[in-house]
Amino acid sequence: MAETTVPGALAPLTPAAVSRLQAHLDGPSSEVRQQTRDALCALGLEKADGLDREEYRDQVLLWLRELAGGGAGARSFPPELGGNDDPAGAIASFQTLAHGDLSLLVKVGVQFGLFGGAVHRLGTERHHQAYLPGVASVDLPGCFAMSESGHGSDVRSLRTIARYDEAAQEFVLHTPDDDARKDWIGNAARHGRVAAVFAQLDVAGKARGVHAFVVPLRDEDGELCDGVEIEDCGDKMGLQGVDNGRIRLSAVRVPREALLDRYGTVTDDGRYESSISSPGARFFTMIGALVQGRICIGSAGLAVARNALTIAVRWGERRRQFGTGLDMDTPLMDYLTHQRRLIPPIAESYALQAAFDHLTTQYVEVLAEPGGQKQREVEALAAGLKAVGTWHMTRTLQDARECCGGKGYLAENRFGSLRADSDVFTTFEGDNTVLLQLVAKTMLSDYSSQFEDLDAVGMAKHLTTRSVTRFLSDAGPLGRFTRDDAELRNASWQAGMLRSREERLVDSLARRLRRLVKDEHMDPLRALSHCQDHALKTAVAQIERLAHERLTLSIADVEDAESKQALEHLRDLYALTVMERDRGWWLEHGFMTGDTGKAVQREVNVLCGQLRPSALGLVESFGIPDALLRAPIAVAEQRSGAGTD
Amino acid sequence: MAETTVPGALAPLTPAAVSRLQAHLDGPSSEVRQQTRDALCALGLEKADGLDREEYRDQVLLWLRELAGGGAGARSFPPELGGNDDPAGAIASFQTLAHGDLSLLVKVGVQFGLFGGAVHRLGTERHHQAYLPGVASVDLPGCFAMSESGHGSDVRSLRTIARYDEAAQEFVLHTPDDDARKDWIGNAARHGRVAAVFAQLDVAGKARGVHAFVVPLRDEDGELCDGVEIEDCGDKMGLQGVDNGRIRLSAVRVPREALLDRYGTVTDDGRYESSISSPGARFFTMIGALVQGRICIGSAGLAVARNALTIAVRWGERRRQFGTGLDMDTPLMDYLTHQRRLIPPIAESYALQAAFDHLTTQYVEVLAEPGGQKQREVEALAAGLKAVGTWHMTRTLQDARECCGGKGYLAENRFGSLRADSDVFTTFEGDNTVLLQLVAKTMLSDYSSQFEDLDAVGMAKHLTTRSVTRFLSDAGPLGRFTRDDAELRNASWQAGMLRSREERLVDSLARRLRRLVKDEHMDPLRALSHCQDHALKTAVAQIERLAHERLTLSIADVEDAESKQALEHLRDLYALTVMERDRGWWLEHGFMTGDTGKAVQREVNVLCGQLRPSALGLVESFGIPDALLRAPIAVAEQRSGAGTD
Repeated sequence: MAETTVPGALAPLTPAAVSRLQAHLDGPSSEVRQQTRDALCALGLEKADGLDREEYRDQVLLWLRELAGGGAGARSFPPELGGNDDPAGAIASFQTLAHGDLSLLVKVGVQFGLFGGAVHRLGTERHHQAYLPGVASVDLPGCFAMSESGHGSDVRSLRTIARYDEAAQEFVLHTPDDDARKDWIGNAARHGRVAAVFAQLDVAGKARGVHAFVVPLRDEDGELCDGVEIEDCGDKMGLQGVDNGRIRLSAVRVPREALLDRYGTVTDDGRYESSISSPGARFFTMIGALVQGRICIGSAGLAVARNALTIAVRWGERRRQFGTGLDMDTPLMDYLTHQRRLIPPIAESYALQAAFDHLTTQYVEVLAEPGGQKQREVEALAAGLKAVGTWHMTRTLQDARECCGGKGYLAENRFGSLRADSDVFTTFEGDNTVLLQLVAKTMLSDYSSQFEDLDAVGMAKHLTTRSVTRFLSDAGPLGRFTRDDAELRNASWQAGMLRSREERLVDSLARRLRRLVKDEHMDPLRALSHCQDHALKTAVAQIERLAHERLTLSIADVEDAESKQALEHLRDLYALTVMERDRGWWLEHGFMTGDTGKAVQREVNVLCGQLRPSALGLVESFGIPDALLRAPIAVAEQRSGAGTD
Repeated sequence: MAETTVPGALAPLTPAAVSRLQAHLDGPSSEVRQQTRDALCALGLEKADGLDREEYRDQVLLWLRELAGGGAGARSFPPELGGNDDPAGAIASFQTLAHGDLSLLVKVGVQFGLFGGAVHRLGTERHHQAYLPGVASVDLPGCFAMSESGHGSDVRSLRTIARYDEAAQEFVLHTPDDDARKDWIGNAARHGRVAAVFAQLDVAGKARGVHAFVVPLRDEDGELCDGVEIEDCGDKMGLQGVDNGRIRLSAVRVPREALLDRYGTVTDDGRYESSISSPGARFFTMIGALVQGRICIGSAGLAVARNALTIAVRWGERRRQFGTGLDMDTPLMDYLTHQRRLIPPIAESYALQAAFDHLTTQYVEVLAEPGGQKQREVEALAAGLKAVGTWHMTRTLQDARECCGGKGYLAENRFGSLRADSDVFTTFEGDNTVLLQLVAKTMLSDYSSQFEDLDAVGMAKHLTTRSVTRFLSDAGPLGRFTRDDAELRNASWQAGMLRSREERLVDSLARRLRRLVKDEHMDPLRALSHCQDHALKTAVAQIERLAHERLTLSIADVEDAESKQALEHLRDLYALTVMERDRGWWLEHGFMTGDTGKAVQREVNVLCGQLRPSALGLVESFGIPDALLRAPIAVAEQRSGAGTD
C-alpha cells in the first residue's frame, strides 16, 4: 500500500539481510542454537497435545532424554566428563529451547542447569565422577531443593537442618515444620531420584550456614526412600509437564561424602573446614551458582516474546481489515496502532539480546576467575536483565495476543499456552521486584564506594561524573538538551540521555537514603524499603542504558549496509521508546523540553512507519521454525494462501 | 507494624463502613446483585472442576437453566412477558455474575443479552410472544450470529445474504464463501436451537442493508436443520464451557415472519418498508442493540479485576516476608511496591464503577427515548468504558498474579482461569483499539459541530470552552498550574487538570486532521488512521476525566464520614495515578511544572500508605463471597489461621 509509505521507509529486508540479522542475534553460539533448533524440531512437540498431566510429564521426560542423547546435557561440564566446558553454549541452547515446549525448557533447566549446576559448581571431583554422567544422560533425574514454603526470596534464612553425626559420620537432614518444606521443587513429584538439598549445616553444635547435600529421594523402582515424603504441588496455571513437588525430610541420613564441599567440608575427624573464612562471603560464593539460572530465564523470556511477535506480525501482514474507508485490502500491519504495539518490542528484543550477550560474556569470565567487584556486577546485571526481560515478555505476549483478536484467543494459535507457561518467569528465580532492589543496592554500593575508599584516580573519575551531573542540573540542562529532531537519531545523544537519567536517579536515591538514615534515624534497610519505587526505577534505568549501549556497540561491527541500517533504526526506536515511556522523568528533571518530548513521540511514529516494510523480515530474523511456532495463523502455507490468492 | 504507618493514615475500615461502601458500589440495583450472588453461590461452581470440554459445556447449560429458573433470564423483558423491564438490573446482574464462572457469564450474555436482546429490541410483538418465553426459560437456546470470519469489527460490510423470494414469501439465507461464515458464535457448536442471523437483505434485487432473521439451527432432537453446517471453533485459551461455533447456511429458507422487523419489514405484497428512511440511520439504530453488550462486558471486566484484587490483598495481608532486615513479620502489604501495584487499581475500580453507573442510567434513558445526540454519546461512552475497563482488568490480573508469587501460579488460586477466561474481553464486542477510535470520532464530531451549526448559545458556550483552553496555552499555564502539594488533593484542581488534557487533545487532534485533509489533501479516514495514537489518547483522556467526575459526584451524596473519607482518598489516588502515568503529557504541554510532577508521584506514595490499613476493608467492600473466589490463599479459614496462629 504505497500511500502509507512514510518518507525514509526502508525497503523490505532481503533474504540475505534476514540471514545476517539472524547471525547477529545468534552470536558466537550460532552453531549450538542451530543444533538446538534441529533437535527441538525432531522431538515432535505436538506429541504433548491432548495428554493428561501425568502423560505429559512422562512425555517431557522422554524428550529430555532425547535431548540428552544429542549431548545437550553436558554442555557446561568439564571435557574429562564428556562435556564441552561451554557455559555460553548452554545458555544459548537454553534460550533457543524456549521457542519450543516450556515444560521441557524448565525440565532441562532443573536437570542440567540447577541440579547439574549444583553438583558441578558446589561439588568436588568425587561428586563430578559419581553424578555428572547420570545428570547428562538423565539416568539420574535430580532436583534442586532450595526454596522452602515459608521462604521465597531469602535463601540465607532457610530452615532445613543438616546436623553432622560424628559417630556415624553422617549428616541428618530434617524438615522442622511445614514452613520449612522444600517447595516448588521441579522433578520432585514424579521423576526425581536424588536432590541437591540446601540446609543449615550444624557441626558439633556450631551453625556453619547454608550448604548443599546430595540426598536420595527414590530408589530404582521409584519408591520413596525412608524419611522422604513428597507431595505434588498440583495443577498450575501452566507448565503442567513439570512435576513440581513439596519435599519433607524426617531425619534422613546421608554419608559425610554427600556434602557438596567445594567451599566448605567436614573432615573425617569431624572438623568443619572452608577456604572462605567469612560465612557471608562463603554464602554469596555458593549462591553465585544461581546466576546462570537467572541469565537463562531472562533470555528465555526474550525467546518466548519472539514467538509471540512472529505469530502476530505474520498474521498482521496476512489479515486484511475491510471496509474501514481505507483500501479494501489494508493489512493490519499498515495501521499505526498495530505498528506501535508490535514494532517497538522487536527493537527492545534486539537491545535486550545485546545486553544478554554482554552479560553471558562477563559471566563466563567470572566463572574462570570468580569473586570481587566483577562477580557482583554480573550478579546484579543478571538480576536486572531477568526482571526487565521477563516483563518485556509479559507485555509483548499480551499485546501480540490482542493484535490477533479472536484468532489469538484460539488455543491452536498458542498464545494461551505461551502465556500460561511463561508467566511464572516473572516471579521465580527471584521475584522481579526483589531482583530490581538487588540491582539498586549494588548501584548504591558502587555509588557510595566512590566516597568511601577513593584513591586519586577514583576521586578524579568520581568528580568528573559528578560534575557532569551537576552541570546538567545546575547550569540549565534545558538549553543543553533542546535539540532539533535530527539529534533524536543520534546514538550519542540517546546514550547521554539514558546515562543522565541513571546517574541522577542513583544520586537522588542515595541522597534520600542518607537523609532518612542520618536525619530521620531510620534503619538503612527500612529506608530502602521506604524508597522502593525509586529503587526500582533506578535499576530499570541502568538496564535500559546498558541495553542501548550494548546494541550500539554490537552495530559497530556490522559491515553489511542493509543490516546495519535496520539495526540503527532499531536502536533509535529502542532509545526513543524508552524515552517516550518515561519522558515524564526527563521533562520534570529538566533534561527534556516539552518540544523534545513531543518530537520523541512523533519520531517513534516515523520509525514505526520506516521499519514497517521490514517487520516481516525482522521477525524472520528470529529464526523460529514453523514446527516450533505451531500456530496455524503463522505457518507458511497459510501465509502464502492469504489475501488475494 | 506501627513503624510503617504514614502521617494521616486512615484507621482500618469498620465493618459498618465496609457495608456502606459495598452499598455505594452496589448502587440502586443492590437487591438484584445480592440475588445474583446468592444464586451463583447455590450453583456449586466447583462442579466444573475436572470436567472435559463437552461435559463442562453441558454443566454450563444446566447452570444457565438454574439461573433462568430464578428469573435471571427475563429481567430486561416487558412485564407482559413475565419480565421486570429492568435493563439496569440486567446489567448489574451480569456484572455480578462475573465474580463466578466466566463461561456461564458468556453463556448468559449470549442467551439473554444477545439473542434475547435481538428478539426483544429488533423484533415485534409476534416475535416477543413466540420466542421470549423460551429465551427466558432456556427452553430455546439461541445464538447471536453477527460476526463473520472475514469481518471482525465491521458489521455493515458483512456478506451473508438474505434474498426475499416473493413467490414463496420466504427469505433465502446463504453464506457465499468461507469468509462469510458466521464465526465465534456462542451456543452454536452444541446447544443452539435457533439463531438471530444478521444478513444483507435483498428485496426484488434491491439491497436494503443489514437485517436480522430468526433461523432454526437444530430440531428438537439436536439434529442440524437442512442447509445448516456448524463447525466447532475448538479449544480456546479459556471459556471452554462456551460452545462457540462457525455456521454456514446453504440456501436456508425461513418464512417472511422470521425477519425481526421493528425497523424494517417486508409486507405480504412483497414491498420493503421502514420507519427510518435513511439506510445509514436504520443501521445505526439496529446496531444500538449492541451497546448493552459493551456495557455488560466492560463492567464484567471490573468485576473480574475485583476478584483478583481481593485474592491478592488478602494474601498480601497474610503472607509474611521473613528475613529482609525489616521486622521478621512484615506482611507483603506493608511494602511500598506491593501497595503501588494493588491499591491504585482499587481506586480505579471505584472510579470506573461510578462511570459505569452513570452510563447505565444514561442508557436506560436512551432506551426510553432512542435516537439523537444522547444515543450517540451513550454509544461512545459504552465503547470507551468497555476498552478502559477491560484493559484495567488485564493489567490488574497480571499485577495481582505476580503479587501472589508461586501461590498465584497454582491453578487452585484461580488467576490462571480468571485470566484465560477473561482475556478475550479486550477484543470481543469490539476490539479495544477500534472502540477507542469510535470514541475519538464522536469527540471530533462534537468538536466540529461547535463550528458548523452554532446558534448563539452554542457559540457562547463554545467560546467559553475555547477561551479557557486558549488562556491555558497562551498565557502560561505553568504559572496557573504550579500549585503547592495541598492542591493535589483538591478535586476541582484534579478535574481541571483532567479536563484540560481532554480538551487540548481533541483540539490538537482536530487541527492535525484539518491540516492533513486541507493542506495535504488526505482522505479524512486515512488522516484519522495517520493520527491513530493521538485519537486513542484523546479517547482515554475523556474516559478518565469522566470517571473522576462521576466518582466525585457520587461522593457528594455520602453522609457517613468514614466512608466519605475513604472515598475521597480513593478519588485523590485515582486522579493522581492517572496524572502520574501520563504526566509526560501535562509536563510537555506546560500544564504541570517539574516540581508538580514530582509532587504527584510523592503523593501517590503517601496515599498508598494512608489507604494501606483500609486495603483489606476496601476489597471486602467488593462483596465477593468465598464460594465465588474459590482461591485457597484467599478464603477466610486460611486467613484466620495465618501468620502467628
